[in-house]
Amino acid sequence: MQRIVVLAGGVGGARFLQGLKSAAPDADVTVIGNTGDDIHLFGLKICPDLDTVMYTLGGGINEKQGWGRAEESFTVKAELADYGVGPEWFGLGDRDFATHIVRTQMLGAGYSLSAVTEALCARWQPGVRLIPMTDDRVETHVAVSDGEGERRAIHFQEYWVRLRASVDAHAVVPVGADQAQPAPGVLEAIGDADVILFPPSNPVVSVGTILAVPGIREAIADAGVPVVGLSPIVGDAPVHGMADKVLAAVGVEATAAAVARHYGSGLLDGWLVDTVDSAAVPSVEEAGIRCRAVPLMMTDVEATAQMAREALTLAEEVRA
Amino acid sequence: MQRIVVLAGGVGGARFLQGLKSAAPDADVTVIGNTGDDIHLFGLKICPDLDTVMYTLGGGINEKQGWGRAEESFTVKAELADYGVGPEWFGLGDRDFATHIVRTQMLGAGYSLSAVTEALCARWQPGVRLIPMTDDRVETHVAVSDGEGERRAIHFQEYWVRLRASVDAHAVVPVGADQAQPAPGVLEAIGDADVILFPPSNPVVSVGTILAVPGIREAIADAGVPVVGLSPIVGDAPVHGMADKVLAAVGVEATAAAVARHYGSGLLDGWLVDTVDSAAVPSVEEAGIRCRAVPLMMTDVEATAQMAREALTLAEEVRA
Repeated sequence: MQRIVVLAGGVGGARFLQGLKSAAPDADVTVIGNTGDDIHLFGLKICPDLDTVMYTLGGGINEKQGWGRAEESFTVKAELADYGVGPEWFGLGDRDFATHIVRTQMLGAGYSLSAVTEALCARWQPGVRLIPMTDDRVETHVAVSDGEGERRAIHFQEYWVRLRASVDAHAVVPVGADQAQPAPGVLEAIGDADVILFPPSNPVVSVGTILAVPGIREAIADAGVPVVGLSPIVGDAPVHGMADKVLAAVGVEATAAAVARHYGSGLLDGWLVDTVDSAAVPSVEEAGIRCRAVPLMMTDVEATAQMAREALTLAEEVRA
Repeated sequence: MQRIVVLAGGVGGARFLQGLKSAAPDADVTVIGNTGDDIHLFGLKICPDLDTVMYTLGGGINEKQGWGRAEESFTVKAELADYGVGPEWFGLGDRDFATHIVRTQMLGAGYSLSAVTEALCARWQPGVRLIPMTDDRVETHVAVSDGEGERRAIHFQEYWVRLRASVDAHAVVPVGADQAQPAPGVLEAIGDADVILFPPSNPVVSVGTILAVPGIREAIADAGVPVVGLSPIVGDAPVHGMADKVLAAVGVEATAAAVARHYGSGLLDGWLVDTVDSAAVPSVEEAGIRCRAVPLMMTDVEATAQMAREALTLAEEVRA
């Protein structure tokens, strides 16, 4: 049985995993989930990326939106607003609240985030092993300029959801990452993997944050197995979200080739770019990363499964 | 302006307060609320009696049921059950959850329960000053016999809501009360009162728990103003709930006269019994407590307002 490790953010990672499960239904898939987007709101611990993976693979996602629960209602949020308690810009539904209540209660009782995630997945049966990158607190902050030109750091969710990345990001800092340890099972899964995949997730605030946890980047580089990524940039624009904004903050051009070079040949063995970016293939290969141009739009599960098959095929080419 | 202090439990206390506000709309009413029924569920702090008073006077109560929110839904609870997280016997609706989320968040941020209660009341505008009896943790436990005849102590809510008081209570203990201090404002309100009223609330687990906080009973006895109560027992049965069960646990007969004697003339100056219990009047007066028989069924706000007027009239008789 093929053992596949995937580093996943939220929507992009979750959709890719749907395709991967369809392409390789018998594979043993371990997902290392980004927790840098986590936020405390209303006294509750919210893990948007872990939940998006869990809901998507467990059949509970709002398919159209890509995050949050299907058939959702917003009674609790409306009541909180009636108490004057916000923020109102973060959309938490009643069904979703239950997840955060269970998580917060278990964390308060002393369980680790990875133990809590396992407990939540016992209900959702995502068909993969989902592990947070770390049980320690890591919080991605974004440095922005305020109206007077003064720099200040805000939580990633405030930048992404409230501001819709509408102002320039000067820096992206995964606060606490340098002190964090990989969660139990993370390094073991990487060490036991046959293939490691980077889905078309945000290279800075999703995959990049996972790689910022000391030991994870090194374990992947030293695993001695093919590491293949899929470009989140198609035709010089992000497929989903506003990845170009945070790429600029780390000095990386928003192109498929620049993202590959950002990961680097020390980490990445193979890279898929979209067919519209086939001109980028030579420059990626020059950087020592095997590259193929294939359709990379996750329009439906079958198209996404084909992307996963291409990634696994490229991995076998690299191995040979 | 007449200053009235009321010691209130849940449903009975809240309904009486509706009548009192109607009878004495210009009075300055301070409600000292029972917190012995408080319980932690799902990691959230729930204060059923404070909320029942707040929702009832603020127009948000489920009128028919007497507790919980009007137009309530139960999405969060159903989701929690899908996670296998209970208990299911405690009925928390989505609107109600928001209250507990705000309260728990504020307590976690270091606010006292009395400060939190004031903040919640800023929304509900109950028209009274609602103060919890204490900011310290007090939890009423009930000693029951299990199937093998072994005694064990369970939380009051488990006894009352889950078991519906269907087994005998051997003892009722307000755990933590002996170490508790009256919340800020409680003793001052009693000291400044013109009249102190005991509504037809449970004399053991509602009014009795408030009186168990050191300093409160003494302050009432020493206030030097009329203290008048209304019997929660009519025709030898509790008007609401299962008060007879917990009265038995403290060795008090479930009669209007026995409850008056249980409070005692050291505390109580006047006592109202229902007209069906007019035969009890002489024995209450023999115990040194002025007693009148008047209709005591809180069938609607006007009937309840009349009860409040009778209590205030009896207070003036006592004073004269």
